[in-house]
Amino acid sequence: MNISGVFPPIPTPFDDHDQLDRAALRFNVERWMRTPLAGIVVLGSNGESALVDEDESRAAIETTREAVPSDRLLIAGTGRESTRATIRASKEAAKAGADVVLVRTPSFFKSEMTHDVFVRHYRAVADASPVPVLLYNFQRVTGVNLAPATVAELAQHPNIVGIKESGGDMAQVSDLVSLTPSDFQVLVGAAPTLYTSLCVGATGGIVAAACVIPELCVKIYDLTRAGHHAEALAMQRQIVPIARAVTTGFGVPGLKAALNLSGYRAGLPRPPLQPASSGALETLRQQLAALAQPAASRA
Amino acid sequence: MNISGVFPPIPTPFDDHDQLDRAALRFNVERWMRTPLAGIVVLGSNGESALVDEDESRAAIETTREAVPSDRLLIAGTGRESTRATIRASKEAAKAGADVVLVRTPSFFKSEMTHDVFVRHYRAVADASPVPVLLYNFQRVTGVNLAPATVAELAQHPNIVGIKESGGDMAQVSDLVSLTPSDFQVLVGAAPTLYTSLCVGATGGIVAAACVIPELCVKIYDLTRAGHHAEALAMQRQIVPIARAVTTGFGVPGLKAALNLSGYRAGLPRPPLQPASSGALETLRQQLAALAQPAASRA
Amino acid sequence: MNISGVFPPIPTPFDDHDQLDRAALRFNVERWMRTPLAGIVVLGSNGESALVDEDESRAAIETTREAVPSDRLLIAGTGRESTRATIRASKEAAKAGADVVLVRTPSFFKSEMTHDVFVRHYRAVADASPVPVLLYNFQRVTGVNLAPATVAELAQHPNIVGIKESGGDMAQVSDLVSLTPSDFQVLVGAAPTLYTSLCVGATGGIVAAACVIPELCVKIYDLTRAGHHAEALAMQRQIVPIARAVTTGFGVPGLKAALNLSGYRAGLPRPPLQPASSGALETLRQQLAALAQPAASRA
Amino acid sequence: MNISGVFPPIPTPFDDHDQLDRAALRFNVERWMRTPLAGIVVLGSNGESALVDEDESRAAIETTREAVPSDRLLIAGTGRESTRATIRASKEAAKAGADVVLVRTPSFFKSEMTHDVFVRHYRAVADASPVPVLLYNFQRVTGVNLAPATVAELAQHPNIVGIKESGGDMAQVSDLVSLTPSDFQVLVGAAPTLYTSLCVGATGGIVAAACVIPELCVKIYDLTRAGHHAEALAMQRQIVPIARAVTTGFGVPGLKAALNLSGYRAGLPRPPLQPASSGALETLRQQLAALAQPAASRA
Repeated sequence: MNISGVFPPIPTPFDDHDQLDRAALRFNVERWMRTPLAGIVVLGSNGESALVDEDESRAAIETTREAVPSDRLLIAGTGRESTRATIRASKEAAKAGADVVLVRTPSFFKSEMTHDVFVRHYRAVADASPVPVLLYNFQRVTGVNLAPATVAELAQHPNIVGIKESGGDMAQVSDLVSLTPSDFQVLVGAAPTLYTSLCVGATGGIVAAACVIPELCVKIYDLTRAGHHAEALAMQRQIVPIARAVTTGFGVPGLKAALNLSGYRAGLPRPPLQPASSGALETLRQQLAALAQPAASRA
Repeated sequence: MNISGVFPPIPTPFDDHDQLDRAALRFNVERWMRTPLAGIVVLGSNGESALVDEDESRAAIETTREAVPSDRLLIAGTGRESTRATIRASKEAAKAGADVVLVRTPSFFKSEMTHDVFVRHYRAVADASPVPVLLYNFQRVTGVNLAPATVAELAQHPNIVGIKESGGDMAQVSDLVSLTPSDFQVLVGAAPTLYTSLCVGATGGIVAAACVIPELCVKIYDLTRAGHHAEALAMQRQIVPIARAVTTGFGVPGLKAALNLSGYRAGLPRPPLQPASSGALETLRQQLAALAQPAASRA
Repeated sequence: MNISGVFPPIPTPFDDHDQLDRAALRFNVERWMRTPLAGIVVLGSNGESALVDEDESRAAIETTREAVPSDRLLIAGTGRESTRATIRASKEAAKAGADVVLVRTPSFFKSEMTHDVFVRHYRAVADASPVPVLLYNFQRVTGVNLAPATVAELAQHPNIVGIKESGGDMAQVSDLVSLTPSDFQVLVGAAPTLYTSLCVGATGGIVAAACVIPELCVKIYDLTRAGHHAEALAMQRQIVPIARAVTTGFGVPGLKAALNLSGYRAGLPRPPLQPASSGALETLRQQLAALAQPAASRA
Repeated sequence: MNISGVFPPIPTPFDDHDQLDRAALRFNVERWMRTPLAGIVVLGSNGESALVDEDESRAAIETTREAVPSDRLLIAGTGRESTRATIRASKEAAKAGADVVLVRTPSFFKSEMTHDVFVRHYRAVADASPVPVLLYNFQRVTGVNLAPATVAELAQHPNIVGIKESGGDMAQVSDLVSLTPSDFQVLVGAAPTLYTSLCVGATGGIVAAACVIPELCVKIYDLTRAGHHAEALAMQRQIVPIARAVTTGFGVPGLKAALNLSGYRAGLPRPPLQPASSGALETLRQQLAALAQPAASRA
């Protein structure tokens, strides 16, 4: 199972009545599939999975699969708080067409989330899942950390094939690579550290910026793999403003707004999330315009 | 709507096959109803609501209602991440017999959880809920804070009747009382600060210790309301060890273990949560024994 | 050694040339000594001790002593990062007239500040200090916590007579009282929790608000000790806005500004601290005016 | 002023009577100067500067200067909490022979440490310092962050030549490089992210590991600058265990122990710091032995 390359963690479009908009979803995925992205991640954090019902989840995965050709990967987020709900969601996702499931750490009972609890949880999920499991660590949001030593133990399981690590601490990313077997795949979850993560052995990235500027993100990946460090770094620097705007800056509402500005049909965020403010929209518009200019005029 | 007094946030019993054990739940509630507790809180954090499905939630509320007489309050946790899921759960809970719904803050998208977002969310829920809404702030677990100024604004809504505040910061508890109308009810969510919270105007408590030692918790409440501060404080001190053990100490597994040791049928925690260790069990046994001794021999 | 009652942690006045202004200091202390305050705390955190040189420290203590009669306590902050500097400062303070030294936790090397390290440090200081030692825990500022279990061990030392605890977590304040001998004195360091701290057995407070509104703070103390809970609580609520403004709100610059507005000579904060903004000044002015009105017109 | 390359932030040796051991200091510096290190950093955090008196500081700088040839840089830590003490220390350091002063952020009054306060503080220090100023950000220890936007503003000052950034967040390191002029020098302060920091444009490192294994650290620097990424990364991985052990693992006591095991004369840490435990010593011994083996036998 090769999960290298760049993947967009796509948003889930909702219409004006707060309903899943399958046509918009399909429209977007088809458009992304005309870029060199390695596949699609549906129902990750940016897919507002925390706000999506089980029925909608199945529909979203099915719809996405229809537009993702079989030679590109469809990764579906299936992490839930209970082990049994996670297993159920993973089976459903596989049935709906997912190639890989992305399983974020349970985290509600933070102080209980010990090494042992994580190991039992992920082993049970990996034992039951019909498709390979990608671990998912996102400490800033969950408040718990899937430590490299825990990941190293889980990497021994034949159905656990890698991890999405969303933190920007390069020492931890590097540890994840060095403490796991060479076929265990580490994907970075933050675009501002895409280049450096690749430097220390990450095999790819699942980054929100790749929804908005897929070509540029893939270019950073290609340049780094080819050893063109200076150009990769220059391009990395170029994408940092928009990469931040659609994550820590303006959140999922910002990501949806940036996509709508770019001709995608991302719809509205689901309440309690509110649409991006007009100020955010203006900032995004400027950042997108700056990226659209030829490099010469930027310099 | 009077929500004063002491309420136990009861655990949800699961059997050896990880299924909701309705008979055990009923057994426990009937026993609690033979104590002077003011009612029951089902599906709060200690009820492992994060791990319970929607179907099970309805069944748990119905079963609890069967054993809670109409002159005592049944409060049901219905907080979800999305506004619409919270509204749906609140309607279901009301239909299943809940008198009040307890709605914890959404928190997955932490940086988006602003004053405005909270106000919109809770107003929409309170508008739609057939029964009164109790706000629920639990910053240690959720990572977000429902600030007193936000609560003050929400307290204007006729269907928002109070808040459960689980933090031990007495300045914040005091603010919640002083910034809201006199009929807005502040309930404390941490037994170690039950007495002091009552001192600053809280009208009651929803505390895990009340599951295990209901009489002692009610006694602290009664003594403080009667102005017997020294005795209330002495009793408060007495319960601190067990109060901590069943919360920050050993978590929900500890609460379930303490109840099983006390003749309740709390069953097992749901994975990924694991049963309390034998060391935890021994500590709990000693703490319960110490509380069971007559006061004279303790002194 | 009786350290009960209310103490102001006084600011250190600097003149326009950033020099210690002894005349202003003396003027202020004489004025405070015409109120029912139990004594003075010089060179605490609010005294900008972190910014004050050793020479100035000695001068500040001497000057303060000249204005503090022998029947009131002079407590001097002498905490330093190294054990030997703390001992030296404590000896100097005693020589300059301090009755008690207030020793904040060392904290630069946070991860090294274990139970054992704290115990050794404070024992060495207490062994060497000519006057009794008051421990000082201020986690919000230092990033380390002097846990109740550590304090309980240190309370056995004959020359360690109490603690100033600046956190608002009432469970910890209560633990400090219940885990230490009855003659070990717990003083609260935050005015918004003065009343509740007294409820759980604190013997007094060292609170910034007592610099600005000494009479009101002493009144809260007296009312609580006399069992007049409702009046104490009412007065406590009244002082919360100004109490916050001169600490977490506007910091030491706010405290100095409030004092200057009240006829004290607090001077300027020492750089890098900057004077309070004009907006802060206006807020302080309004808060002070509100407190100056007769209670009748407030109701 | 070229500050590129690798610098060791050397510990300050104390003898059995807790006195500065100038002979040991000189012995150590002479030995480091027989390696390809670019210079010496004296009285940084690892130099226990928080525990060192002003008199000792001057002596430590003078002694170090005697052993650092004029073609290598001597950088001295002079950050204090007050602006005036920082200026005084910087002047003293220059007089004692420092080529550059390293000025950590003041941090005691955390909430007051705004952009404006930092800008005023550092400008005043840079105006007054006879030698160039290197900013120093160490959020994990100080609890405050010198944000890239603030650094960008300070980089305009002709006497502020660079920054030591001790955090491992590569996005922030990258921002520091991209937001400042090309002659502003960013040095990384954590050995585990030495390689990636160089990848994003850092010009060198001030890392504790360089005290213990100077040649390896310089080798990582040289390999990366020469574009030999794979070898640089392999060597980077090799040093991570010891690099952590002498910082976050066992702290300054661990650094001193590792040096003593390696033939340096690092002496004892100053109380309240305590010597490394025997367990720590054993771990360090093994890590040093592993690094001493020829690469062939490691593979």
